[in-house]
Amino acid sequence: MTLVEKPTVGFVGLGVMGKSMAGHILAAGYPLFVYTRTKSKAEPLLQKGAKWADSSKELAEKASVIFTIVGFPQDVEEVYLGENGLITNGRKHSYLVDMTTSSPTLARKLYEEGKKKGISVLDAPVSGGDIGAREARLAIMVGGDKEAFDYVCPLFEIMGKNITYLGGAGAGQHTKMANQVAIASGMIGVCEALVYAKKAGLDVQKVVDTISTGAAASFSLSSYAPRILREDYSPGFFIKHFIKDMTIALNEAEKMGIPLPGLSLAKQMYEKLAAQGEENSGTQALYKYWEV
Amino acid sequence: MTLVEKPTVGFVGLGVMGKSMAGHILAAGYPLFVYTRTKSKAEPLLQKGAKWADSSKELAEKASVIFTIVGFPQDVEEVYLGENGLITNGRKHSYLVDMTTSSPTLARKLYEEGKKKGISVLDAPVSGGDIGAREARLAIMVGGDKEAFDYVCPLFEIMGKNITYLGGAGAGQHTKMANQVAIASGMIGVCEALVYAKKAGLDVQKVVDTISTGAAASFSLSSYAPRILREDYSPGFFIKHFIKDMTIALNEAEKMGIPLPGLSLAKQMYEKLAAQGEENSGTQALYKYWEV
Repeated sequence: MTLVEKPTVGFVGLGVMGKSMAGHILAAGYPLFVYTRTKSKAEPLLQKGAKWADSSKELAEKASVIFTIVGFPQDVEEVYLGENGLITNGRKHSYLVDMTTSSPTLARKLYEEGKKKGISVLDAPVSGGDIGAREARLAIMVGGDKEAFDYVCPLFEIMGKNITYLGGAGAGQHTKMANQVAIASGMIGVCEALVYAKKAGLDVQKVVDTISTGAAASFSLSSYAPRILREDYSPGFFIKHFIKDMTIALNEAEKMGIPLPGLSLAKQMYEKLAAQGEENSGTQALYKYWEV
Repeated sequence: MTLVEKPTVGFVGLGVMGKSMAGHILAAGYPLFVYTRTKSKAEPLLQKGAKWADSSKELAEKASVIFTIVGFPQDVEEVYLGENGLITNGRKHSYLVDMTTSSPTLARKLYEEGKKKGISVLDAPVSGGDIGAREARLAIMVGGDKEAFDYVCPLFEIMGKNITYLGGAGAGQHTKMANQVAIASGMIGVCEALVYAKKAGLDVQKVVDTISTGAAASFSLSSYAPRILREDYSPGFFIKHFIKDMTIALNEAEKMGIPLPGLSLAKQMYEKLAAQGEENSGTQALYKYWEV
């Protein structure tokens, strides 16, 4: 699927994810405006032909499809609804796409606020990490109007591989939350298994090799256990961001009236680690919860 | 690797696992004696040429390599150390192999008791379930003396595919425990993700399809989520047996001085379900913990 005419694209947030994603859009030949809090982060893109916007307000005035991938829900809210916000200053018939992992409730609010001004807002969080962003292999989970999804889809296809439309506003964020919920307890299981094996005096590498092909098999076991075994706690995914996600999911679950005891436990364990100074470690540092 | 001369093999326990495993031994041309509490379960094997032993005592007298796969640790203890037990009545230079998922501490006890009588005892729990047993694709995790493992290995190879020697007595059971520990919290994660997705009003099948190829990927998600979605709670693995395994693992962890909060939570949740009459459901019935 291709767009008949290439729209001018805007990008807010050029962190470890955004810089690669915006780079793919630029490389595909779209006119690109970028804005980010720290202008130096935009330099590599500006050198390749992207144009700088001095604010999200300016971006809203110049681009007709704008992607955002920032840090926390409060950042999203500011970028969309603040004084210089994308919705506040948005043009009718433009498309705003938040790819931050953020609150489903906020996603619905942005959708409604956008609608009032004739702006289509999509929530489209991703998974696949910095490598997925760099290699344009992100999974993109999209919620909002189907027509808006269809319009923006060619741009999603430039950034990712596994692109799914999941329903109305918030459905993308909810799906990402379900993903994080599954990962949270799964990571507890992986770390507890490793701690158990080590304390039992087993050859932990051999145990991992043995159990990772059967019923205990998981992405977390295969990709994080080797890092834990070589004491590599560098962030593929930051503990502080995982705590943000778990907090959002628990808030949503509370609104829906469902207890998620495994997720609550995971959040407590990760918060304890963060309090011990591990918030910038990777999620596999959950292993440090135990002193082994 | 092959045995120079085919030893007479004994088999105790012809449940859903044991009947297939013993069948493979028989089919490979080994003389086979079987004993099980309910004789009718032995009939299909007897018709194919297996011989009946009236007790584990008789089996101990007739076979030189004996496999056991029974229910609970107390059954294992009775079969090995009771009045008619395999060790109690065992012959010097014979091999006893417990394939029940049982206590590592008991495995070490049996090893020591066997040693006093010149009997080699191995712990060799399996994973792969009834299908793995039927198709001779079990993973077999072995602890005990390496020489004993080498001797019995050709027989393991008749029953399984992924056969690993993990160290001294108890190492096989400990490895199986590590496997169950990883699965326990992983299953909480899978069920919580499905409950969350359903309550959020998402198309749960679509969510599973979307998240099961990324960082949330796991054997449990891929193989149990589809059953949960079609409300199939029939046992691949019984809740009552999983509770047994979790109880063993928690007891061992306590002895080692490590808290396993995820495993403790899983055990509590499964015990609640068992108390509600779900002990003979499959482990995926954890989904029923929530009323959705």
